[in-house]
Amino acid sequence: MSADAHLSAKLAELGTNLPAPASAKGLYKTVVFDGHMAYTSGHLPITAEGEILKGKLGDDYDVDSGYKAAQLTALGILSTIKDALGSLDRVRRVVKVFGMVNSTPDFDQQPAVINGASQLFADVFGPEHGIGARSAMGAGSLPLGVPVEIEAIFEIDQ
Amino acid sequence: MSADAHLSAKLAELGTNLPAPASAKGLYKTVVFDGHMAYTSGHLPITAEGEILKGKLGDDYDVDSGYKAAQLTALGILSTIKDALGSLDRVRRVVKVFGMVNSTPDFDQQPAVINGASQLFADVFGPEHGIGARSAMGAGSLPLGVPVEIEAIFEIDQ
Amino acid sequence: MSADAHLSAKLAELGTNLPAPASAKGLYKTVVFDGHMAYTSGHLPITAEGEILKGKLGDDYDVDSGYKAAQLTALGILSTIKDALGSLDRVRRVVKVFGMVNSTPDFDQQPAVINGASQLFADVFGPEHGIGARSAMGAGSLPLGVPVEIEAIFEIDQ
Repeated sequence: MSADAHLSAKLAELGTNLPAPASAKGLYKTVVFDGHMAYTSGHLPITAEGEILKGKLGDDYDVDSGYKAAQLTALGILSTIKDALGSLDRVRRVVKVFGMVNSTPDFDQQPAVINGASQLFADVFGPEHGIGARSAMGAGSLPLGVPVEIEAIFEIDQ
Repeated sequence: MSADAHLSAKLAELGTNLPAPASAKGLYKTVVFDGHMAYTSGHLPITAEGEILKGKLGDDYDVDSGYKAAQLTALGILSTIKDALGSLDRVRRVVKVFGMVNSTPDFDQQPAVINGASQLFADVFGPEHGIGARSAMGAGSLPLGVPVEIEAIFEIDQ
Repeated sequence: MSADAHLSAKLAELGTNLPAPASAKGLYKTVVFDGHMAYTSGHLPITAEGEILKGKLGDDYDVDSGYKAAQLTALGILSTIKDALGSLDRVRRVVKVFGMVNSTPDFDQQPAVINGASQLFADVFGPEHGIGARSAMGAGSLPLGVPVEIEAIFEIDQ
């Protein structure tokens, strides 16, 4: 099954649609290609209806709601990539994920939150190609008050 | 007009000089080249007179003063690159910017702050080559108490 | 003297053993190779006995204990690389280090903390190849409450 088909199946399972490709929240491009590498900008959790999630882990967000926000952020990244490449089947693998979690000073479960994005990439690209290197860290605050911001590097077919 | 000439024009418009190339604040190089890629270290806002700006967004810095700090940080990055390469004309494009904003827990306008750096890169390299992928995030604190720290990846002519 | 031998000498000087290669704290690989580049995941300070250090700079950790935590984190990164490549002699150089320091809002000595990792890389790979570009920043919180998290990019012999 292709990555596009895996994504469709996952969206059906989640009962949601793919969010629109990210629009830049500042002076940047949402993805830049260099040879076989794709560098995405930091993406925020925005629903298919255009709502931007807001909250902080350790305060009004817990690991479960943070996980879902990370999943939604990953869908937004895939939407950006699919829009740029035409198909996710041109993605060879996830190289690197950097996950920033809007956290109170004592929240320490950032990896469990960012797993929401990593599991989605694994579901779409498979456990070998969908899982890359990763850092998850606690940001004291994030743009627009979102709970999660994620950037990723993908290897692609040129 | 060349990137060097654009930089000179921008400095004249701002009524300032180019800061000195960054000196390392620890055990690192200010820029590392790998093939056609240049990875810069995190740069801090330091004036042409050598003053290091200090402050926190949401506290003693607002978006406007943060924007100017990001602009100054970008000038420092260009000074480092120009010093290493001889001329900014060897820069092909901005690939990626990572902007860290020293923020109170509820400050959420990091993209507007980092735009100060992105606009400067766009002015110097043009809107197509000067704008890359980007993340802007809120750091709970930064080295030496600066309001902004920025690292960037450039593509260069070898 | 080879990098492996330098590492052994450094471990003897420190009176410690190499920590075990990192086990993932979430859905990720501890290192991913792309051509001659190795991207490591964020590593945490874990002792050879398996204890995870916990603390925050500006609170229960000072620069000296933070430096040692960064040193330990760097040992963990080398353990991961050595495990994956068989020998550190296949490392050509450090390209980039990103050091996140769990900090109170007014702690501002992140570079001095991350120097603990940079000095270790310099000791093992030499001052020219062991020192790369770097950013050090203040995270409001980190996974499992660790004082330091570090990711790095290395250039390797393929």
